[in-house]
Amino acid sequence: MVTRGAERTFYAPVDAELRELQRRLLGVGDGGHPTFAAAVQHLFGSPGKLLRPTLVFLSARFGPSHDPEVVLNLAQSLELVHTASLVHDDIVDEAELRRNVATVNATWDDDVALIVGDYLFAKAYALAAVLPKPEVIAIVAQTVFALCDGELNEVTASRALPSEGAYFERIELKTASLYAACCQGAALLADAEPEHVAALGAYGTNLGLAFQIMDDVLDIAGDETDFGKTVGRDLAEGMPTLPMIYAVEETDDRTLGVRIVAPGKDAAELRELLRIIRESGGIERARAKARAFHDAAVAALDALPDRPERDALRDIARFVVRRVR
Amino acid sequence: MVTRGAERTFYAPVDAELRELQRRLLGVGDGGHPTFAAAVQHLFGSPGKLLRPTLVFLSARFGPSHDPEVVLNLAQSLELVHTASLVHDDIVDEAELRRNVATVNATWDDDVALIVGDYLFAKAYALAAVLPKPEVIAIVAQTVFALCDGELNEVTASRALPSEGAYFERIELKTASLYAACCQGAALLADAEPEHVAALGAYGTNLGLAFQIMDDVLDIAGDETDFGKTVGRDLAEGMPTLPMIYAVEETDDRTLGVRIVAPGKDAAELRELLRIIRESGGIERARAKARAFHDAAVAALDALPDRPERDALRDIARFVVRRVR
Repeated sequence: MVTRGAERTFYAPVDAELRELQRRLLGVGDGGHPTFAAAVQHLFGSPGKLLRPTLVFLSARFGPSHDPEVVLNLAQSLELVHTASLVHDDIVDEAELRRNVATVNATWDDDVALIVGDYLFAKAYALAAVLPKPEVIAIVAQTVFALCDGELNEVTASRALPSEGAYFERIELKTASLYAACCQGAALLADAEPEHVAALGAYGTNLGLAFQIMDDVLDIAGDETDFGKTVGRDLAEGMPTLPMIYAVEETDDRTLGVRIVAPGKDAAELRELLRIIRESGGIERARAKARAFHDAAVAALDALPDRPERDALRDIARFVVRRVR
Repeated sequence: MVTRGAERTFYAPVDAELRELQRRLLGVGDGGHPTFAAAVQHLFGSPGKLLRPTLVFLSARFGPSHDPEVVLNLAQSLELVHTASLVHDDIVDEAELRRNVATVNATWDDDVALIVGDYLFAKAYALAAVLPKPEVIAIVAQTVFALCDGELNEVTASRALPSEGAYFERIELKTASLYAACCQGAALLADAEPEHVAALGAYGTNLGLAFQIMDDVLDIAGDETDFGKTVGRDLAEGMPTLPMIYAVEETDDRTLGVRIVAPGKDAAELRELLRIIRESGGIERARAKARAFHDAAVAALDALPDRPERDALRDIARFVVRRVR
C-alpha cells in the first residue's frame, strides 16, 4: 500500500492480504461480459480507502483460526456488496463523480450501471455462499437487507427534516451495518471469543456511524478536490443530513428546514444555504457527534487483547474522524 | 391451483408444493420495509404461470431423496431470481405492464423498482446459500451471471439485426439458463442419476428456448388482452427478435432490417412494420423453430423413467408452444 499517506499506518499489519484482495477485485470481471469487465477495471483500477476489507483482515486476527482463503472471501464479498450498492445508489442519486472518478452511470449509462450492480451483488453472494459458517453467510445477507432498507428509507422519505433519531437509524442501515458485518463476520470466521465478537461488532457499528456523519459533514464543509465528490450534493437534492438538522436547531429557524429539503436548488440558493449552515454551528455539533461515536468505538476495543491489530483499529477510528476536512 | 385453465393438468402432481410456495412468496416482504412489503404483495398477489417452480417440483421427483424443505427453498430462490430480474428488466425497458398488472417501476418509480429488485435478489441468495449442495448453489449463481450477461448483451447491442445464432445465444442466457437451472438443480438436490440430471438439463434448456421464441412471437402476433403485455413493444423499441430476423430473410428486403432496429417508432410505422412482418412468413418460421426446440425438449425426456411427472413435463412443453396465440 505504498501509494497511501504515511499517516495511515493501520494498513501495515494486513498489507499482504490487501494486495491479494486488490488483485482478486481486479479479476472479478475476467471471463465475464466485456462491458462488465471494463466496468470492473474502472471501479477497482483506482482503489478507494479499502477500510472495510482492512477491518475484516484486522478483526480476523482476534481468533485462533487462520484460514486466509476464507477471510479473503469474506473481505472480497463485503467489498463487492459495498461497491454494488454504491453503483446502484449513484443511479438513484444521479451522481457523476465518486472518489474523483466518473461513476458507472456517468461513464456508461443507467442501464449498464443497473446490470453491473446486479452482477457485483451476484459475485458477492457467490463468495459468501461458500463461507464455512452459516451465521456469517446470514450476516452478509442481513447487511444487504439493511442497505436496501436504508436506501428505500431515502427514496420514500417525506420532504421533511427528519429527527436526529431518524437520521441515525438511516445511517445505521446504510453504512454502519456493513462496518459491523466486516468486524463481526471476520471475528466469527476466526472463532474469536463471543465477547470479542461482540466488542468488534460494537466497534464496527460506532465506527460506521462516525464515518457516515463525517461523510455528511464533508459534503457541507469539504474541499471538492480533497473529498473526491461534488460538494453540496445532498443539500442540492434536498437530502437532509446531520449538520443540516443541527443547523436548523441552532438557528431556531423553521423556514430553514423547508428550504433545506427542497429538491433541485439553483446555484445561488445552494451557496446561500451552505453559508447559513456553515455559520450556524451545525457542522461543529455534527463533528462532535462523530467524535462521540469515535470514542464509543475506541472504548469497545478495551475488551480486546492488547495487540498491534488493536492499535490499528484505534488508528482507523482516528483517521475516520480526522479525514480531509 | 383451481383458478387455472382445465388444460393445464401438469400442475396437479405438485399442487401442494405450489400452494406452499405461493404462501411463502407472499410472505417474502414480512418484517421488511413497508414499501418492499407492498411491492411483494403487488408482485405475488396475482401469481404468474409459475412454470419455473413447477419444473423444480416435478424434476425433484426423479431422484431418491425427498426433503421437501430443500426443494421448496430452491423453487423459491429461483422464482425470486426470476422476479428480481423482471423488475430490473422492466426499468431498462420502461415497461408499464406485465401479466396484465402494472410494473413496479410504473406503480412506484424506477428508484423503488431498483431497490426492490436488489432486495428480491438478496432474498433469493439467502435461500440458495442454505441449500445442502455447493454445486446447486453454484448453479443459482451461474444463472444470475447468465441473466446479467444476457441483459448486458441487450443494452450494449449495436443497432443492427443480429444473426439467428446471436439471437439464440441471447435467449439462452436470458431465459433458457433459468429453466435449465430449475430442472437440473432440483434433480441434483434429489440425488438423481447423472444421466437423468443431464436429461432434465437438456429438457430445461430446450424448453426455455421454445418459451422465449413463443414470447417473442406473441409480441408480434399476440392479442394484447390474452398476452398480458403491450403487443409490439420489442418492435417499437427496435429490439430485434426471431420473427423479425426471419421476416427480413423471407422478404429479402435489407431496408426492412434497418427499419426494424430503429428505436422509438411512431404508431404508424409500428403498424406498418407489424403488417409486413405478419405477412412475411417470419412468424410461421419462428413458430416452427419453437416447435423444433419443443421436440428436442420432449426427446430429452425419453431418458427418464415413465412416470406421471414425466407426462407433466411433456404437457408443459406442449403448453409452452400452444399458449395464447
